Amino acid sequence: MSNATSKADRTRQLIIRATAPVFNAKGFAGTSMNDLTRATGLTKGSIYGNFDNKDAVALAAFDYNFSQMTEYMKNKILSVENAVERLLQYPLVYSNFLHIPFLKTGCPLLNTAIEADDTHPLLREKAAAALLFWKTAIENQVKRGIKRKEINNSTSPVQVAVVMMSMIEGAVMQAKLSGRSTDLRIAMDYLSQYINGLSR
Amino acid sequence: MSNATSKADRTRQLIIRATAPVFNAKGFAGTSMNDLTRATGLTKGSIYGNFDNKDAVALAAFDYNFSQMTEYMKNKILSVENAVERLLQYPLVYSNFLHIPFLKTGCPLLNTAIEADDTHPLLREKAAAALLFWKTAIENQVKRGIKRKEINNSTSPVQVAVVMMSMIEGAVMQAKLSGRSTDLRIAMDYLSQYINGLSR
Repeated sequence: MSNATSKADRTRQLIIRATAPVFNAKGFAGTSMNDLTRATGLTKGSIYGNFDNKDAVALAAFDYNFSQMTEYMKNKILSVENAVERLLQYPLVYSNFLHIPFLKTGCPLLNTAIEADDTHPLLREKAAAALLFWKTAIENQVKRGIKRKEINNSTSPVQVAVVMMSMIEGAVMQAKLSGRSTDLRIAMDYLSQYINGLSR
Repeated sequence: MSNATSKADRTRQLIIRATAPVFNAKGFAGTSMNDLTRATGLTKGSIYGNFDNKDAVALAAFDYNFSQMTEYMKNKILSVENAVERLLQYPLVYSNFLHIPFLKTGCPLLNTAIEADDTHPLLREKAAAALLFWKTAIENQVKRGIKRKEINNSTSPVQVAVVMMSMIEGAVMQAKLSGRSTDLRIAMDYLSQYINGLSR
């Protein structure tokens, strides 16, 4: 019984990992059943033996894509102590966005937000929750920095979160579209200056 | 002959205008032939009598959506003379983004960029050209402001363009996703401060 469960779990994981980059590149509407069978090497029957429908695969794939991103950032952030240095990890990481393998197909939050906002309530909800998670994480870093007297106490945590997230997502869109990092670097350099300006 | 041409032109225009918001909301992959016949009230035969294929309709719809946006901005910008005031029209307009009727389905540049970057070379090319057009327009406003001694001559035109476009597109994505303008206003207030800081 527990073997059967763990085999089913492994198949589910295989399906999620194999289809996550496809959903991120092609979008929900642009991903066909053929794409899913090709990416997994499994039959349609086998995929639908593990997931109710394409929606269920897409939602799990989004969670997987977003968790890869947050794990990666978390490791970078926890590698330093000072709150300003922690925030600086964002422009550092995103300057190299085009060269991070699992981000080759773009930012999953941005891609899903843009596709789902007018079309897919369940995916939209996932993306909105991810956005709020990210925003809260940045706000908490700012609050921690104020407490530790590393960040000026007149700083608005919500402003820092909104400015950082907007700059990053807007610049990533442009970099993905042009295939070049030049303007992304200009945007991330500016963001680094902004973050350094929060120092107490 | 000229009557026939103008009738064909009118039908093409009708198709473009009716389908432009559908493509912007649902994306290229998410828009079906049924969506096109429903939006136009025309038959499939009539649509394909005027356009070679769905690609051709989508490309024309993108041009229409983008030109609506640029016309709207151009009128706002030319209503003032000072270069700093001209740049300030961007955060002013985008603060009200969710209440501008033809932007209800989102920024056409952002939507098309995100969908097409990994999937649709012709649409991607259109979006990249639109991005460059916008960037050049902002750079030229900055250069004009430096010449007119309204903007500090140490200002980098490309930095201003990249910061403005990134902030706007990133904040618009978040506003569309959440359906709320609160954070968009915070981002646009910050952008206004940044632009005011360019004053000489």
